Amino acid sequence: MATIQDVARLANVSVSSVSNVLNGRTERLNPATFERVQEAIRTLGFRPSQVARQLKTGQTPMLGLLVPSTANPMYGQLALKIEAEAQRQTGYRVLLGNTNRDREQESRMLDDLLSFGVHGVIIVSSLTDEQHFEPATRQGLAMVSYDGGADPNMPARIDHIAPDNFQAGHLAASHLIALGHRHIAFVMPAGRTVSRASKIAGFEAAATEAGIAETAEVIECPPAAHYGDAELAELGQVLAARLARTTARPTGLIAVNDMMAIGLMSGLHQAGLSVPADVSVIGMDDIGMCSYTNPALTSVAMPFGDMAEAMVRRVMLRLAQPGLAPIRLCFPSGLVVRQSTAPPPAVNRVAGAPTRRRG
Amino acid sequence: MATIQDVARLANVSVSSVSNVLNGRTERLNPATFERVQEAIRTLGFRPSQVARQLKTGQTPMLGLLVPSTANPMYGQLALKIEAEAQRQTGYRVLLGNTNRDREQESRMLDDLLSFGVHGVIIVSSLTDEQHFEPATRQGLAMVSYDGGADPNMPARIDHIAPDNFQAGHLAASHLIALGHRHIAFVMPAGRTVSRASKIAGFEAAATEAGIAETAEVIECPPAAHYGDAELAELGQVLAARLARTTARPTGLIAVNDMMAIGLMSGLHQAGLSVPADVSVIGMDDIGMCSYTNPALTSVAMPFGDMAEAMVRRVMLRLAQPGLAPIRLCFPSGLVVRQSTAPPPAVNRVAGAPTRRRG
Repeated sequence: MATIQDVARLANVSVSSVSNVLNGRTERLNPATFERVQEAIRTLGFRPSQVARQLKTGQTPMLGLLVPSTANPMYGQLALKIEAEAQRQTGYRVLLGNTNRDREQESRMLDDLLSFGVHGVIIVSSLTDEQHFEPATRQGLAMVSYDGGADPNMPARIDHIAPDNFQAGHLAASHLIALGHRHIAFVMPAGRTVSRASKIAGFEAAATEAGIAETAEVIECPPAAHYGDAELAELGQVLAARLARTTARPTGLIAVNDMMAIGLMSGLHQAGLSVPADVSVIGMDDIGMCSYTNPALTSVAMPFGDMAEAMVRRVMLRLAQPGLAPIRLCFPSGLVVRQSTAPPPAVNRVAGAPTRRRG
Repeated sequence: MATIQDVARLANVSVSSVSNVLNGRTERLNPATFERVQEAIRTLGFRPSQVARQLKTGQTPMLGLLVPSTANPMYGQLALKIEAEAQRQTGYRVLLGNTNRDREQESRMLDDLLSFGVHGVIIVSSLTDEQHFEPATRQGLAMVSYDGGADPNMPARIDHIAPDNFQAGHLAASHLIALGHRHIAFVMPAGRTVSRASKIAGFEAAATEAGIAETAEVIECPPAAHYGDAELAELGQVLAARLARTTARPTGLIAVNDMMAIGLMSGLHQAGLSVPADVSVIGMDDIGMCSYTNPALTSVAMPFGDMAEAMVRRVMLRLAQPGLAPIRLCFPSGLVVRQSTAPPPAVNRVAGAPTRRRG
């Protein structure tokens, strides 16, 4: 069985350089050395004993990834991309845990990860504050928060990586406005997280620019008792049934994410309304499912691949250099137009265009 | 900070009993003792140092869970249930990894888990054989295979837990036959895994019993280059486009799982056909999404909660007693009828029933 010395010899580097690679301290290495060490590890089939390594460094070569729930395919897809990046960049595995968007569960899992020797965590929380992350960071946990908010009152060194949510809200509203919609709504569960507030700001900015601020609503669904497997789709379905009964309803709906948009479409169809002939629906995230709904769902795509790359890179850098000043990186989003959006019924009638198209 | 001695004192048990609970050797304890220890741990907020515990026992208080891809919501939902059961039964965390249904990745991950000190793994593989699990079991890994096949030629002690796939195929076919369908098909990706073979056997048995064996087809889609995020939905969509162009197509389609069924419905709609008026579609798994497709998807429900409970219980038992003879447990499945199934068009015409209903 190959030893760390064998790897160093083949790569023509010092044992401490190999150790740096194995322990993710790659920022101190030049890329050529890093590549040579990786190549030698592959050639020799070298597999260090993780327990022995953990004992020596106090660290496990593993990143933690905490998400609200893998029952939402968006988090499952993001997890796949983060896992692939962690493997590609550092050979680290990813320990994935579900937190159900619950403060207690998040705190407990951060403690657990620390006690397992995991010192780098990517967390998707969406809670309104991150005060409960602070104890873990004080104990040396390097954290990158996805789509969370940097709290100016919090001294903790946490990096934030997020899609441009303002742009996402603006893109979605602008698309509906360009199609002729005048009465539009942004739909979400109760509770303004940081990312939701930005999406709403973008939505409202686009409405104001188009002079329709008075008929641009924000609809918050009543809170559900439990953040369950399909809660967001269910909230959308229930809300759609309610909207279907009102006459002065919006002609275009923008959902906070795709799962809620899928629920909205389901509820509208069940109420006898057609998407997009009667109501246009836009989702956000652009999960794989958007291509397979009926009609296929127009959605704002978030650059998950680029963000996964940046999150893994940043958490590894922070592991190596804990004193780094926190950063916030924002990635542009883009609109993917499919079949769930069309001009509103009134515009169709004025223009003499057909009022129905195949759903 | 509370010690293991404090816990033993409060629970009025020996330190070794507490140690047994902490290390998952719960089979040797009577339930009342187990409950008292758990209660004392909670009361004192006791949190053992995992690294120290791992050193002493060589084991990490963690189960591994390997799934093909969390991009399929079925695996994300199953992971949630297994995680909840592991927490409930033993306080263990779950290390979730994606393997992309790839033999190499499965082997590598099993090695990694062992080197992290994880000695209990639940694996969802669906590959046709499990020879590549053997090296890991020889090194002491306790394994439970979900929905895999017990290989009579393999000496490894691996337990198998699965839904009753024969029954699933039989239920789905019988439902279509009872609605009046005579030309039905079972649709799946290329490659007969153990579970697919059982589903097909059930499907064919129901067809034979109904005297329609000659018009009951098995359609294997051409293999895709890569087991990707949405491959199964995409395979379904492509196949549906092909079926739509043939005149003598089946009037009822049973997909190997819900993702493929969702793709079939999407492709049929895009080709101008209506589900269920022109073609009925049934999925398998009953993922949360089935309630939100348009039309809502009839599906064979697998008892994921019961199976998660049994898998966690069995892997913990095998950790405690490695010499146990392997078992195979089979859980009954059930049909959930929604809106994607109806009598076939010909039967509608004969009966004078309306040929379209709202999708």
